[in-house]
Amino acid sequence: MKQDPRIVIIGGVAAGPKAAARARRLLPNAEITVIDRGRWISYAGCGMPFFLDGQVNTFEELFNTAYDVIRDEGYFLREKDITVLTSTEAMEIDRAKKMIRIKDLAGQEERWIPYDKLVVATGASPIIPPIEGRDLKGVHGLNNPDDLLRLMETVGDVNEAVVVGAGFIGMEVAGALSNRNILTTVVELRDQILPGVLDEDLAGVLKTRLESQGIDFALGQKVIRFEGENGRVARVVTDRGTLDAEMVVMAVGVRPNVEPALKAGLKIGDTGAIEVNEYMQTSDPDIYACGDCAENVNILSGRHTYVPLASSANRQGRVVGDNIAGRRSRYNGILGTALLQVKNWNVGRTGLGEQQAQALGYETQTAITPAHDRSHYHPNHSLVILKVIAEEGTGRLLGVQGIGPGGLDKRIDVAATAISFGATLENLVDLDLGYAPPYNTTIDALQHTANTLRNKKSGLVPMISPRKVWEKLQSGDDFVLLDVRTQREHDSKPMNDERVIHVIMGELRERIDSIPRDKEIVVFCDLGIRSYEALRVLKGAGFTNIRSMEGGMRLWAYGPVGML
Amino acid sequence: MKQDPRIVIIGGVAAGPKAAARARRLLPNAEITVIDRGRWISYAGCGMPFFLDGQVNTFEELFNTAYDVIRDEGYFLREKDITVLTSTEAMEIDRAKKMIRIKDLAGQEERWIPYDKLVVATGASPIIPPIEGRDLKGVHGLNNPDDLLRLMETVGDVNEAVVVGAGFIGMEVAGALSNRNILTTVVELRDQILPGVLDEDLAGVLKTRLESQGIDFALGQKVIRFEGENGRVARVVTDRGTLDAEMVVMAVGVRPNVEPALKAGLKIGDTGAIEVNEYMQTSDPDIYACGDCAENVNILSGRHTYVPLASSANRQGRVVGDNIAGRRSRYNGILGTALLQVKNWNVGRTGLGEQQAQALGYETQTAITPAHDRSHYHPNHSLVILKVIAEEGTGRLLGVQGIGPGGLDKRIDVAATAISFGATLENLVDLDLGYAPPYNTTIDALQHTANTLRNKKSGLVPMISPRKVWEKLQSGDDFVLLDVRTQREHDSKPMNDERVIHVIMGELRERIDSIPRDKEIVVFCDLGIRSYEALRVLKGAGFTNIRSMEGGMRLWAYGPVGML
Repeated sequence: MKQDPRIVIIGGVAAGPKAAARARRLLPNAEITVIDRGRWISYAGCGMPFFLDGQVNTFEELFNTAYDVIRDEGYFLREKDITVLTSTEAMEIDRAKKMIRIKDLAGQEERWIPYDKLVVATGASPIIPPIEGRDLKGVHGLNNPDDLLRLMETVGDVNEAVVVGAGFIGMEVAGALSNRNILTTVVELRDQILPGVLDEDLAGVLKTRLESQGIDFALGQKVIRFEGENGRVARVVTDRGTLDAEMVVMAVGVRPNVEPALKAGLKIGDTGAIEVNEYMQTSDPDIYACGDCAENVNILSGRHTYVPLASSANRQGRVVGDNIAGRRSRYNGILGTALLQVKNWNVGRTGLGEQQAQALGYETQTAITPAHDRSHYHPNHSLVILKVIAEEGTGRLLGVQGIGPGGLDKRIDVAATAISFGATLENLVDLDLGYAPPYNTTIDALQHTANTLRNKKSGLVPMISPRKVWEKLQSGDDFVLLDVRTQREHDSKPMNDERVIHVIMGELRERIDSIPRDKEIVVFCDLGIRSYEALRVLKGAGFTNIRSMEGGMRLWAYGPVGML
Repeated sequence: MKQDPRIVIIGGVAAGPKAAARARRLLPNAEITVIDRGRWISYAGCGMPFFLDGQVNTFEELFNTAYDVIRDEGYFLREKDITVLTSTEAMEIDRAKKMIRIKDLAGQEERWIPYDKLVVATGASPIIPPIEGRDLKGVHGLNNPDDLLRLMETVGDVNEAVVVGAGFIGMEVAGALSNRNILTTVVELRDQILPGVLDEDLAGVLKTRLESQGIDFALGQKVIRFEGENGRVARVVTDRGTLDAEMVVMAVGVRPNVEPALKAGLKIGDTGAIEVNEYMQTSDPDIYACGDCAENVNILSGRHTYVPLASSANRQGRVVGDNIAGRRSRYNGILGTALLQVKNWNVGRTGLGEQQAQALGYETQTAITPAHDRSHYHPNHSLVILKVIAEEGTGRLLGVQGIGPGGLDKRIDVAATAISFGATLENLVDLDLGYAPPYNTTIDALQHTANTLRNKKSGLVPMISPRKVWEKLQSGDDFVLLDVRTQREHDSKPMNDERVIHVIMGELRERIDSIPRDKEIVVFCDLGIRSYEALRVLKGAGFTNIRSMEGGMRLWAYGPVGML
């Protein structure tokens, strides 16, 4: 006699299998069926860009468990007693009868199956704008393993590629193509890369660093059409020019697959995704939704948001499994934490960006610092550039984002944790984080950035952004740009302008009379630390109109000087 | 007219220079003097083991700024207007007159210098037990650059070395010597490596993994004497045997240098270090203490503790600089967070260990899980073994510790942050941590461990530790040890015992009748995940007397099977 609920799950990629597996562990004897309209299930979608550039060796690895067993229908049946029906579409949900009509896409047969608890985990589909020529050969998406296989068939012969969209997937794909030595241009409608992920300042720095590694960008451009030759794509025409392209990858975003839910009368939220409560229940309490088809809640703003990520999908799937099995389990939402890798640069963010925070009505203060991710004498040391966004007055941490070849993920996760608990800048610098030379510096890069912001807030160090300095240089302002770097730094990355005075930090005190007292001074160095010291020296000597260029040359993304 | 305080700082290595530099930035015109009895200042003491094995290329790097300028007396004077007097000892503090008598150790001259604010940052000295033969050539410590230079003169000719003490420095040195292909044995009085850092269970696993990489251990042994030949050390005699050794490194701990403070009548705490309040003031409010000579407070226990670490020293130095300059700044104490690297294994901990928590009266529950640090298909993926210690009932997180070749530092820092805010296990798994394949798994290893502990707490999965399984095997218990690993895993790391039944997870349901229902069953796999699944299957089929071996073979540290 079975009293366990009959569980049907629509969607077999991430959230669905997670909910199924969790439910199975809690209810060893429940009947669990997963249906998916595709032929691939439980695959590592996030791993696809890493297969594209050869970091993942075999296609099968994207489907394997950690112990080398393929997660196919047989695996789910044998190891988890879960019935998986692939190539099977959910056609209709009869909520009154608690039945779902499913269709075998191969044999075209349809039948009704009953459920006690239904999980909608239908995922998302790529947005395909109605661009002329989008059906040409060589125009791809990268949403599922079939897309990946098609891409792999094309990519070997390609020398020039265009990626449409500079979001997560677009940037990862561009990095992978560039790693294959394909000349890659990313076209993006907005004026910056990774809009909504990075603030404009960090996005600008990242763009120049990726350009120096061979990726081109065509920002603020709209794709008008794809032009072909012999049925294959050959060019991408935008509103501002034409780009040669033997291959195009479309990555302009995804939209939630809500059709079966919508037809069943389940409530769809303002974001266009399925509305759920904190238990991941839809407007029908016996129907759950999770993963890329469901809405999320941003913890900081309290607002519904649509952020389809594998990490949320898995956390949500577990919560659904709990609730189906009668364990009351909540899902609290997201901070918008995200990580990605492009070439050898890491990108991460959590919480609110500066503009996002301002749009929500926060008065913000920010600091950006480049810093070493570990002791500078350790052979693995590298650079991270972190931006901290805090609420003015309270000093409450609102967001952290960063870029760099160095260890960024740790700082983002620490920030996400701190933000979750309402941390202030002072809380952040009080944290007893671990230290040893292979892992960080005695004061961690994140705490260093928080300290910098505290220094700024307290008026200790008036700052000016590199962009503002660039604008001053361009507009012909009369001011002194004081370079306090060492001779070697000065020579290797010169800032060529007649307004530059070079006085190395170690000589500043003795040569202080060589610096004009009647002019505005902007002092800069490599990382922004010596310029802060220099500013304090000059303040102490009675100079008044002086600012430090925030983040130093590591944040410079303009004009003749472009550096890694 | 100078109104700024005259600042004298005793100690020029870590906390002292940090306090001086911070004070300088806040008070551009204050007179700041640092004295140090040694000839080396502001060096990277934590980097010395990395120079020993060649990871740091030149001795100078340990003294360099990130922009390649040596931090010597001239640097401090030129760049920071700080007078540093090396080879100068603080002989006497006259608190009434606010004068300090200093002695030039080279010229033997003495003089009195005045202070308004005094900072005691005298550091710590290695404990040298009165062991016979400790003056033989080849018997070293590693407390300062002179020790390092002496070590480097010896180490090239050495084939066999003994390290006395299995604490932080002992383990780092043992790893460095082993990296130089020197046969290294670590002698430790206690029965485990890293006592006070790791709990016994993780310490046992780490020991076997380091043994397999060539480091030997002589635990629970007391060194009786060093024996020499021709004035050079040749053997180490312990209470249980004799070890050949052409070189010995003593690393049995350090004690705070409190002499000048003690003579001046400043209060010394129960730990033997200088007592300070939250502003780092000693019992004399115009005298501060920071770094390895000062007491710390453990935030979790509320107790004074002596944990000399570079990270605390730097945070404290900054707080002292603030307070000297009239900015009220607090230091809140530590969680006992620490990281170290031995061979290719990372070790980390924060908060309380299991035994430490119990000693403080907490009822604890723990879970240990081995897990991948990033997606298993990503080429850089590796293993981390995490232990989470929580308070029974409340589920409040008390401590996290871990070992492994994989990315451990991130999980320790996230745990330290969470513990700082009083997080529960549930808070921990709710965190929106970043995910992408190069950085972690969709559910981070730390959250996975927290989930495992929640499963344990809720009775979902009764567990037994590998040690208990080993004891059962040794004591001849009649039970079934059910191996659900794949054939390849089973063959490559066999558990040879007639009580083992091997049924791979994928065949468990169909072969369930081959498992005796009248016997106690312990099920195990590689990581402890499939054994949990198998346990749930067997529970569902009516088996009752069954437990899962916690952490699987990755935690096995006993008997014939020893694996990385």
